[in-house]
Amino acid sequence: MSTGFFPVDKIKYEGPDSTNPFAFRHYNPDEILLGKRMEEHLRFATAYWHSFAWEGGDPFGGRTFDRPWYPQDNMDLAKKKADIAFELFTALGTPYYCFHDADVRPEGANFAENTANLNAIVDIFEQKQAETGVKLLWGTANLFSQARFMSGASTNPDPDVFAFSAATIKTCMDATMRLGGENYVLWGGREGYETLLNTDLGKEDAQMGRMLNMVVEYKHKIGFKGAILVEPKPQEPSKHQYDYDAATVYGFLKRHGLENEVKLNLEQGHAILAGHSFEHEIATATSLGILGSIDMNRNDYQSGWDTDQFPNNVPEVALAYYHILKDGGLKTGGTNFDAKVRRQSIDAADLLHGHIGGMDICARGLKAAAAIIEDGTLDKELADRYAGWEGEEAQKMLKGEYSLEDIQKYVEAADVNPKAKSGKQEYLENVVNRFV
Amino acid sequence: MSTGFFPVDKIKYEGPDSTNPFAFRHYNPDEILLGKRMEEHLRFATAYWHSFAWEGGDPFGGRTFDRPWYPQDNMDLAKKKADIAFELFTALGTPYYCFHDADVRPEGANFAENTANLNAIVDIFEQKQAETGVKLLWGTANLFSQARFMSGASTNPDPDVFAFSAATIKTCMDATMRLGGENYVLWGGREGYETLLNTDLGKEDAQMGRMLNMVVEYKHKIGFKGAILVEPKPQEPSKHQYDYDAATVYGFLKRHGLENEVKLNLEQGHAILAGHSFEHEIATATSLGILGSIDMNRNDYQSGWDTDQFPNNVPEVALAYYHILKDGGLKTGGTNFDAKVRRQSIDAADLLHGHIGGMDICARGLKAAAAIIEDGTLDKELADRYAGWEGEEAQKMLKGEYSLEDIQKYVEAADVNPKAKSGKQEYLENVVNRFV
Amino acid sequence: MSTGFFPVDKIKYEGPDSTNPFAFRHYNPDEILLGKRMEEHLRFATAYWHSFAWEGGDPFGGRTFDRPWYPQDNMDLAKKKADIAFELFTALGTPYYCFHDADVRPEGANFAENTANLNAIVDIFEQKQAETGVKLLWGTANLFSQARFMSGASTNPDPDVFAFSAATIKTCMDATMRLGGENYVLWGGREGYETLLNTDLGKEDAQMGRMLNMVVEYKHKIGFKGAILVEPKPQEPSKHQYDYDAATVYGFLKRHGLENEVKLNLEQGHAILAGHSFEHEIATATSLGILGSIDMNRNDYQSGWDTDQFPNNVPEVALAYYHILKDGGLKTGGTNFDAKVRRQSIDAADLLHGHIGGMDICARGLKAAAAIIEDGTLDKELADRYAGWEGEEAQKMLKGEYSLEDIQKYVEAADVNPKAKSGKQEYLENVVNRFV
Amino acid sequence: MSTGFFPVDKIKYEGPDSTNPFAFRHYNPDEILLGKRMEEHLRFATAYWHSFAWEGGDPFGGRTFDRPWYPQDNMDLAKKKADIAFELFTALGTPYYCFHDADVRPEGANFAENTANLNAIVDIFEQKQAETGVKLLWGTANLFSQARFMSGASTNPDPDVFAFSAATIKTCMDATMRLGGENYVLWGGREGYETLLNTDLGKEDAQMGRMLNMVVEYKHKIGFKGAILVEPKPQEPSKHQYDYDAATVYGFLKRHGLENEVKLNLEQGHAILAGHSFEHEIATATSLGILGSIDMNRNDYQSGWDTDQFPNNVPEVALAYYHILKDGGLKTGGTNFDAKVRRQSIDAADLLHGHIGGMDICARGLKAAAAIIEDGTLDKELADRYAGWEGEEAQKMLKGEYSLEDIQKYVEAADVNPKAKSGKQEYLENVVNRFV
Repeated sequence: MSTGFFPVDKIKYEGPDSTNPFAFRHYNPDEILLGKRMEEHLRFATAYWHSFAWEGGDPFGGRTFDRPWYPQDNMDLAKKKADIAFELFTALGTPYYCFHDADVRPEGANFAENTANLNAIVDIFEQKQAETGVKLLWGTANLFSQARFMSGASTNPDPDVFAFSAATIKTCMDATMRLGGENYVLWGGREGYETLLNTDLGKEDAQMGRMLNMVVEYKHKIGFKGAILVEPKPQEPSKHQYDYDAATVYGFLKRHGLENEVKLNLEQGHAILAGHSFEHEIATATSLGILGSIDMNRNDYQSGWDTDQFPNNVPEVALAYYHILKDGGLKTGGTNFDAKVRRQSIDAADLLHGHIGGMDICARGLKAAAAIIEDGTLDKELADRYAGWEGEEAQKMLKGEYSLEDIQKYVEAADVNPKAKSGKQEYLENVVNRFV
Repeated sequence: MSTGFFPVDKIKYEGPDSTNPFAFRHYNPDEILLGKRMEEHLRFATAYWHSFAWEGGDPFGGRTFDRPWYPQDNMDLAKKKADIAFELFTALGTPYYCFHDADVRPEGANFAENTANLNAIVDIFEQKQAETGVKLLWGTANLFSQARFMSGASTNPDPDVFAFSAATIKTCMDATMRLGGENYVLWGGREGYETLLNTDLGKEDAQMGRMLNMVVEYKHKIGFKGAILVEPKPQEPSKHQYDYDAATVYGFLKRHGLENEVKLNLEQGHAILAGHSFEHEIATATSLGILGSIDMNRNDYQSGWDTDQFPNNVPEVALAYYHILKDGGLKTGGTNFDAKVRRQSIDAADLLHGHIGGMDICARGLKAAAAIIEDGTLDKELADRYAGWEGEEAQKMLKGEYSLEDIQKYVEAADVNPKAKSGKQEYLENVVNRFV
Repeated sequence: MSTGFFPVDKIKYEGPDSTNPFAFRHYNPDEILLGKRMEEHLRFATAYWHSFAWEGGDPFGGRTFDRPWYPQDNMDLAKKKADIAFELFTALGTPYYCFHDADVRPEGANFAENTANLNAIVDIFEQKQAETGVKLLWGTANLFSQARFMSGASTNPDPDVFAFSAATIKTCMDATMRLGGENYVLWGGREGYETLLNTDLGKEDAQMGRMLNMVVEYKHKIGFKGAILVEPKPQEPSKHQYDYDAATVYGFLKRHGLENEVKLNLEQGHAILAGHSFEHEIATATSLGILGSIDMNRNDYQSGWDTDQFPNNVPEVALAYYHILKDGGLKTGGTNFDAKVRRQSIDAADLLHGHIGGMDICARGLKAAAAIIEDGTLDKELADRYAGWEGEEAQKMLKGEYSLEDIQKYVEAADVNPKAKSGKQEYLENVVNRFV
Repeated sequence: MSTGFFPVDKIKYEGPDSTNPFAFRHYNPDEILLGKRMEEHLRFATAYWHSFAWEGGDPFGGRTFDRPWYPQDNMDLAKKKADIAFELFTALGTPYYCFHDADVRPEGANFAENTANLNAIVDIFEQKQAETGVKLLWGTANLFSQARFMSGASTNPDPDVFAFSAATIKTCMDATMRLGGENYVLWGGREGYETLLNTDLGKEDAQMGRMLNMVVEYKHKIGFKGAILVEPKPQEPSKHQYDYDAATVYGFLKRHGLENEVKLNLEQGHAILAGHSFEHEIATATSLGILGSIDMNRNDYQSGWDTDQFPNNVPEVALAYYHILKDGGLKTGGTNFDAKVRRQSIDAADLLHGHIGGMDICARGLKAAAAIIEDGTLDKELADRYAGWEGEEAQKMLKGEYSLEDIQKYVEAADVNPKAKSGKQEYLENVVNRFV
């Protein structure tokens, strides 16, 4: 029986011409693209964090939302929140959801209370998952909101905070395992620094490397089949965050022997904050073999903080999915909306509008990406551009058969004097624009 | 015999109260700091590139300078340029200089002409070094200005450009070796992309990795004792440059097995463009063991392109040297002014003013950094902050003796519930301000 | 008779399904939108500057293009350039073109030569306009490239540069008048500063205000019917440019009594550099009544300099035209492509691809904007949101009939205690996405 | 009798060699500079807002501070907060303080309760001012934190919010008047927009203009002698804030006839967010005659949000005071620390460290600025650079005696062909560095 919080119970696909604000115009789960259902391509997840735990505050003002599950400080209201959360998941038809421990349970006075509260909620989630068929994309531990984490979790100068964090991660991995979660995520919001004056980078790197190794060891021990995912972000709340971007995390993983064990959860807004396009981060991760999952929430290009808005630009989203499809698609990962409605969007209906719009944008982006791939022009142009590298001399250079001296001789003998060839950027952009 | 280009022949130390614009007020080469002469700490180098090859142009206007060595297209003028360049090095008393091949020789019609031109200039440099005592900090190849490099050098889709680049690097390494250069630098200005639509990141990474391996192999073959240095920059001229920042280059080196062979040449302006402070890049490099040398030229904080200005802010410069001193100082590296006077600074005197000011700022920064280290407060505060990690349980966690489960047991048994401790940032900043 | 420079002579509309890279898929000049032909809405112009004067250089490399009109230093080649330029205008069917004096004539040794060269080219342009029907959207003077302008034109500390600039503007206004130009543009690339240390802001403001007043006086004297347009840009090449953005130029105009005489030429890329969206700049200008014309070339969101790329994002372009249509459309203004193909796009075909893609994107944006307006939902929502201001008390407050004290009494008497209402941002974004 | 909250009761000047962390090393109130006491130059103020109302939260975490005046929801604790606040003012010896209504009084259920609470606190402040001699630099109304202001205060689409805001401003102006405040400030944190889709710029401009006119009218009516100050900020919390920067506010004032009635309260951090240096904003304001007061808190150059840190860089601060001194110094304005200690700086001592360090940095900056002015080199160089404008022809051009045609004749007759002169930027920077 519905709580009646949302104005409609179920969002359905009505096609592009629908003007019903509570219908999908593009997201049609059963539509087949490149031989697979759209739902299976996109693997949408709704996030507890922004839709249910955030209360509309910002650095200059407090709560603007008025929800029946406020204040979020006791188990009864946590249960009511869960009821309404699953109503949202069901209304939208997102096959997955995601959560931090602190999103779903009241904060306890100590570790034992936190654990007990979390486990009580997991009992409820197990039942709700069974009833609704909604699955868990990933779980994670919030190791940044409570004051004890103000100087970091695994990178805290106080080893007791490291211990508290490790124990908390274990309980969240256990919860994720119990709920059949398909991934486990680590976002290190305060694993970084405010000032180098009080920071020992080497020590903190060693601590963070040890923690992630323990996570991987525990994953194997309990037989968790999902992926361990690190979520890069360059800064905010920290002045500098160690998991800066995809390339930086790759270096960290390699340094600690984890490049084959851990993948990335990439977020569009975090890419922007790091000075990258989202497609750059995705393409970088796929080229390094470490793409895991995505958070499909954009940043405002004129704002220097994380705005976590629902996606709204088909051409950008299409290029993101283009690189994902070229990588073989999302495997255990999904498309999570780590997005929040604006703090002026205070109605329950706004939560629906945000997700409906976001899902439709992703559907359009995915369809465009699939069409680009089926068309094949881009792939052919790319292959042509590098075709020279298939030549004999080229392969010798690439495979290590030639030294600098050998190459100098070749250049002198052949008077190699290459002429520039057009990069054809505008033409290729026009090809893309046939599909977006 | 002087060409008379510069208004004064020799800049001398006159002390802080001097109002002579052609004197040092702080750079006193023989002053002893932490047991070493200031000159040996700073290891200043003057760059040919900005002071002699750049003509004052920018994207919206052409040459503003009028130099006796223009146009830079024949050997006679290249020799005249060398005469005046060494007059600058001598006037300033910078013990080192640096150059790209294209800075010092006219552009030839093909590889053979370039090589011949370069070698003719190296003959002259050898003699001038002997006459003046000025030494070569590093040499490098300009693989970005000529049109053939427009789509990259080692990462070009055309293997002939790779070959041309490899051969050119070899000639520049040979030149550096002949001149007793203490390092060899690679800056990949066009090793990156303008658009992902025409770019295969994986292929280009393999090409770039192979090139750098060949460089290292050749270094060992010829017995070059200096360091191989990669210079990070996030973008410009490329939309994205692969050697984005220190952490990204670390990942690249590790991926290609080069983390013990190659170090970094860090530039303040490039750090800023990558969203970092200079001290961040230096501290990151030292924590990873890959700091090599620095380009001490700042970026304007309000400009989104590389302004390459002389350093001008003692507090910032002091923190840079603080991290360098904590790393044991510059070894084969130095303090290079990869800086250019503004395009409105068209007089010969302006070249002196820029360098004099920059050298004095560095001298003040170094003195402050040495004083901070001698004072010891910062180091003590840092040690205190992490002291808890010396404890028994902490070491077990760090050394891998504890698993997540062990730690959970410890947390539960001891009811670990850490209280936050002040990070003391403002106090530490005040300590620094006693010295800068 | 064609020079044969371009691979095709005429780009035609073939509809959305065309895969011909040399056809329009969306730009159909005769299509009627909101009762007006698409061509008359968009009023496209091709810019001489980037397509014919720029040679592919950037701060780190020189010319990459190889054009039959290079080097651009004599009248014969200037005439050949004009031939090919008008072939481009004709092939694309852009009804307008734009130029700086320095784009079209060789640089003379002094003012008299510049004037003679310009007038000789204007003779040719007059004939070509008559032959082809192509018209002049605007002319302008390049007062930033030659070395004499390095410290500004009207704001130069040297009054002789002010004089040279004023005289040059007069010749360019005369040329624009002769050619039937519909606007005259001023972009102050070096009207700003590199350092405040050598700059007197008050003096330079007075100089710039006097110059613009002289321009307006001369316009009226010669009976020029077009608009005088100032083009805002925040920086580059200057560290700070006085015509920072729309709001700043408004203040300047108001200060010098010109707010009813001068309008703005807004550029998307300049908006981005100033920290604004393009729609912000357009909406600001329309709300202040000073929108004149647009340069429809985007900046890269990750690059901190002006990239001047062809537009490529329909959702963004649609919102730009939405605000233009709400302002009654472009009047004497137009849609100018102040855009350049990438420096790797070295083929003549690339010049076509860039413009074709840009024109199609604008056509799609315009169609979407017209559809949003015809739909009416956005306008209705906006009217509803502010409807309370039609009330009696509200009008008294707005019209100045109430003082703070009167309002306090009203608030206390009525216990005014307003409740927040949803801003509905996500819903409104979804409405827009039905059309873009 | 002290509450004992702070570890020391009084911070004294001990001179540059002091290592006492609770002493001034540079701020010596009685030191004479340019004929005036340092205290009268700097006119320091401590802000209630960041030091007493902010609890250490950020967008990713809650309260970290633990203060005896928490929770801030009743009058008894508000009184305790006032006791400790005045202990801080007294300990530091800042002659002034500043406050928002919401900083000092508990939030009431409606306007009447807010007013009553405010007035009760004003009674206390009156007494404390009398006891301590501390004065009020400015008061202001917080019209952005409570949910009713989420869509703006004067620019709200709901006229009832405008009314509530107007009435609140009146009570805050009354409080400021009673307390002898020397200025009244308006910062429009939510006077802007989140999306243009739901915003009517013209309507909101009219509303905001009317409000500011009412404020000025009321000021004159009650005989308030202080200045009305608007505080520019480009964004945050709003995506766009109307009072973007100094130049934008100037245009707004001019549009609404207020340019002689209202001045600016400039903040270093806000300047940075707007893409400007602090000295730019100050020099712009002084050149327009609208500098009022300053908030001396810096932003981190790598963070895209307002970090509100204590000033920490003497060279930057010196240039700020240089422009202020050239404008005749702060008149009714002051140097307010709208700065907050980092959220990890949780001890009472940290509040002292932040202010002590900030005051010492300002003292050093002021001394350097005064020395630059006394030296006179910069002023002389500036005068020399523009000296040509004193010439006869130059004055005719500037004064409007010449038209474009007259100038053309002059240029042709004299063959005016100006040669560029060096801008001497590096030399001038070196001059400054003799003093900072």
